[in-house]
Amino acid sequence: MARIVMKFGGTSVADLDRIRHAAARVQREVAAGHEVAVVVSAMAGVTNQLVGWCQSLAPLHDAREYDTVVATGEQVTAGLLAIALQQAGVEARSWLGWQIPLRTDGAHGRARIAVIEGAELLRRMAAGQVAVVAGFQGLGPDHRLTTLGRGGSDTSAVALAAALSADRCDIYTDVDGIYTTDPRIVARARKLDKIAYEEMLELASVGAKVLQTRSVELAMKQRVRLRVLSSFADGPGTLVVDEDEIMEKELVAGIAYSRDEAKITVRRVPDRPGIAANIFGPLAASGVNVDMIVQNLAADGTTDMTFTVGRADLPRAEAVLAAQRASIGYAEISTDPDVAKISVVGVGMRSHAGVANTMFRTLADKSINIQVISTSEIKVSVLISAEYTELAVRALHTAYGLDGA
Amino acid sequence: MARIVMKFGGTSVADLDRIRHAAARVQREVAAGHEVAVVVSAMAGVTNQLVGWCQSLAPLHDAREYDTVVATGEQVTAGLLAIALQQAGVEARSWLGWQIPLRTDGAHGRARIAVIEGAELLRRMAAGQVAVVAGFQGLGPDHRLTTLGRGGSDTSAVALAAALSADRCDIYTDVDGIYTTDPRIVARARKLDKIAYEEMLELASVGAKVLQTRSVELAMKQRVRLRVLSSFADGPGTLVVDEDEIMEKELVAGIAYSRDEAKITVRRVPDRPGIAANIFGPLAASGVNVDMIVQNLAADGTTDMTFTVGRADLPRAEAVLAAQRASIGYAEISTDPDVAKISVVGVGMRSHAGVANTMFRTLADKSINIQVISTSEIKVSVLISAEYTELAVRALHTAYGLDGA
Repeated sequence: MARIVMKFGGTSVADLDRIRHAAARVQREVAAGHEVAVVVSAMAGVTNQLVGWCQSLAPLHDAREYDTVVATGEQVTAGLLAIALQQAGVEARSWLGWQIPLRTDGAHGRARIAVIEGAELLRRMAAGQVAVVAGFQGLGPDHRLTTLGRGGSDTSAVALAAALSADRCDIYTDVDGIYTTDPRIVARARKLDKIAYEEMLELASVGAKVLQTRSVELAMKQRVRLRVLSSFADGPGTLVVDEDEIMEKELVAGIAYSRDEAKITVRRVPDRPGIAANIFGPLAASGVNVDMIVQNLAADGTTDMTFTVGRADLPRAEAVLAAQRASIGYAEISTDPDVAKISVVGVGMRSHAGVANTMFRTLADKSINIQVISTSEIKVSVLISAEYTELAVRALHTAYGLDGA
Repeated sequence: MARIVMKFGGTSVADLDRIRHAAARVQREVAAGHEVAVVVSAMAGVTNQLVGWCQSLAPLHDAREYDTVVATGEQVTAGLLAIALQQAGVEARSWLGWQIPLRTDGAHGRARIAVIEGAELLRRMAAGQVAVVAGFQGLGPDHRLTTLGRGGSDTSAVALAAALSADRCDIYTDVDGIYTTDPRIVARARKLDKIAYEEMLELASVGAKVLQTRSVELAMKQRVRLRVLSSFADGPGTLVVDEDEIMEKELVAGIAYSRDEAKITVRRVPDRPGIAANIFGPLAASGVNVDMIVQNLAADGTTDMTFTVGRADLPRAEAVLAAQRASIGYAEISTDPDVAKISVVGVGMRSHAGVANTMFRTLADKSINIQVISTSEIKVSVLISAEYTELAVRALHTAYGLDGA
């Protein structure tokens, strides 16, 4: 007998049939003798509609009212799933964030979980009642509803699993696990049986958006064993665990890509101390996140600074740099939105040299020019022209021996 | 300066444009210096969809989960109207039932309001903040959401007006007031400037469903001055007040009709004591409401019992009577669903004789046969064949001098 948290995303509870199907999944775990808490998202599309209404009424709306409106999506699913479970003969009740309570800080619209008072839930789960918890929502210090930011139900599930000391947190979604890369690009992409938290984080943050990044960070910190699996098909899914639990570490776990980047080059900046701060300080102050950075020194005592920002931030970044032209003292700025970031991720590269070199050689063999390089302990990323994205991903997938049968 | 509760029904907040329009109505009252609390229904159609989902999953669903699901409709409207008010420059915040709290008993799905702890609302309203209250919902003794039954937002508004000692409770709806009869039948129906609580109750319960009956009962008991007015057009609407406030009482306030009745006749029942209890006891036990009753004694020591039930209850009533045939001892049962109940309502008839006689004579002049008669202090009702409904209503409207210019 184990204690399990099951989480169903929006596509897994998209309509009444899917909700009945989710109830059947829960019933199976209950029948196996497990204590179960279920965390649910809003039915697919509902949150977008609610958010759209708030934005239509006021582009800059009160985040407390936004939370009041948007939290209803999960409330509906929680009640409906409880009804479906009862109809299937499973004892169940719904729990709203304020009823548990799941307490958060006061940052409406993007609240962080402070504490989950799970004693009553545990008592009832031990007595055989399934707790159906509305994800994404909590109770703020102002006695008002808060929400955790888009994708927050993943974080609700992991936090609940930690609070309840659950043996496992199963994330039911519309994919059957984590793949070595995007199967839409590489037909021979392989599903991973296990992946380390750190790898999952790197894969998530560069575009493989199966889980909310925060939820993986929290799982890593609280040592919650995550499992990603399909609510549409049977299968073991992928376990996200501590790297110590992975016996046979692959050198590289997967290849990720992101087309949401844009490149900016600031040319012929006088090469003196403080120039990086002059460029990146104002960008940070304007909320523009800078990712990869490379600096080239010229012979004439000037330097070119190249970096990437999120593509949606490009107009804002250009405006900030134009306003700071005098203080930075650059000759010109060029931008390129048609770039892609390709990343090779794997905890195995901590103990193996040559991973980066394999990447560079593979791309060179395909005549793909590397514009920027950045590395971390478990990741090597390069920026290339967007048109080579699929070619690069396929070539690297083969080069690192990831192709499946 | 007055303290006002404004209530907007589903059609008055049906979409974002209507919500903006409602906000403008509220803004006008705030600009006039009034303290305002607003009670909102779910956007038109939303509650039906939520109820439908619950019923699809389980015809006999847990009323606590039903309440959790269905209460979201008003929550969404409350948040959206608060945003619309803020956008219009009006200070406002939403209040959910559990936040006020508005406490109810534990009868989920049809809860009754126990107490509204309005101190914090009053404090903020005095400070100029509009309280936007989600109607229809409350907090049960089990710390779970309750709802007040269909149309419950009217009751929320009246109860809130009583708790806040409001000067007036304005019910914004899709009609511009209470009419002497249905304007779809009588083109010369007149809008009433004032109507007594008792008259409103009789008109509501016989088919003129502008306000939930419970809300009128509560307004009468708590002496809350109600005003029914249109959210779509300007106009003073109709005041629902104590009859003492109506100086020039009309003999008859209005003519109501209902086609939701069915007639049952139980023939040749042995005429002995207890036979009425034998018939109506089992019907009551099965939840069948019996309305008009008439008993005819025959010469042979038997009696015919004729009565009406709600048309939807007819199959159940027939089944109950068939099962009780032996204990009742009747010869046969006949039923007629094609009947209509026509009612003449007016507090003025307390002090005037001849109201019923005018009714009978008017119907006789049109050759309309009266099947059953029932009377109360302020109402005379007759049951007639449904095909004469419009003819009867028009003739009576003219006979009592109600026709407008």
